[in-house]
Amino acid sequence: MPIAATPDTPYYAVIFTSLRSTPGAHGEGAGSVDDGYGAMADIMAESAARQPGYLGVESAREEVGITVSYWSSLDAIRAWKNDSEHLLAQRLGRQSWYDAYQVRICRVERDYGFTRA
Amino acid sequence: MPIAATPDTPYYAVIFTSLRSTPGAHGEGAGSVDDGYGAMADIMAESAARQPGYLGVESAREEVGITVSYWSSLDAIRAWKNDSEHLLAQRLGRQSWYDAYQVRICRVERDYGFTRA
Repeated sequence: MPIAATPDTPYYAVIFTSLRSTPGAHGEGAGSVDDGYGAMADIMAESAARQPGYLGVESAREEVGITVSYWSSLDAIRAWKNDSEHLLAQRLGRQSWYDAYQVRICRVERDYGFTRA
Repeated sequence: MPIAATPDTPYYAVIFTSLRSTPGAHGEGAGSVDDGYGAMADIMAESAARQPGYLGVESAREEVGITVSYWSSLDAIRAWKNDSEHLLAQRLGRQSWYDAYQVRICRVERDYGFTRA
């Protein structure tokens, strides 16, 4: 489901906007095309989905990558930020995968949508 | 600047997640490839940027499209939602361009980032 099925407001969102570095430019990888980025992204998506308070995720990348994950509370976001494997992924992200990123922690106050009949 | 240069928190974000319809499936267009979607998207981006309280935008589309616009206040978001040209674009979106979308109005509580030195 590419649009996350989130519950009634309020809930929380983490907007992660990123610019990928040129693959291989900063990494110590053994020549893989993306320095492990794709594999780690898959593992992190699966791991996030198992966290308490996880509500869903939406993601797209063109010039910029945007991943929005949804959570039931700020505590759930904090716990996921401090997950040990996630901390490792964050470190590799700064070392190799990203030239820049911005993380925004939000409270979703209101939402509405449309689905074609 | 693909990552928006937003001010200190708090500020507001509108997360617009959408699924495009198959071009031509619902429109009355005269055969243009995307039923005017691309042209309208450009016009709306320019118009949003001229609104009071506009802070920036980030956008990417793959399977799903995600556009996050940033605003100084809920009043600024409300005024843009009710802009007459924007109302027309919203109507065309439901009539032709989107199979589904979700709009989430958020208060950005905290943010941080990384830029490669």
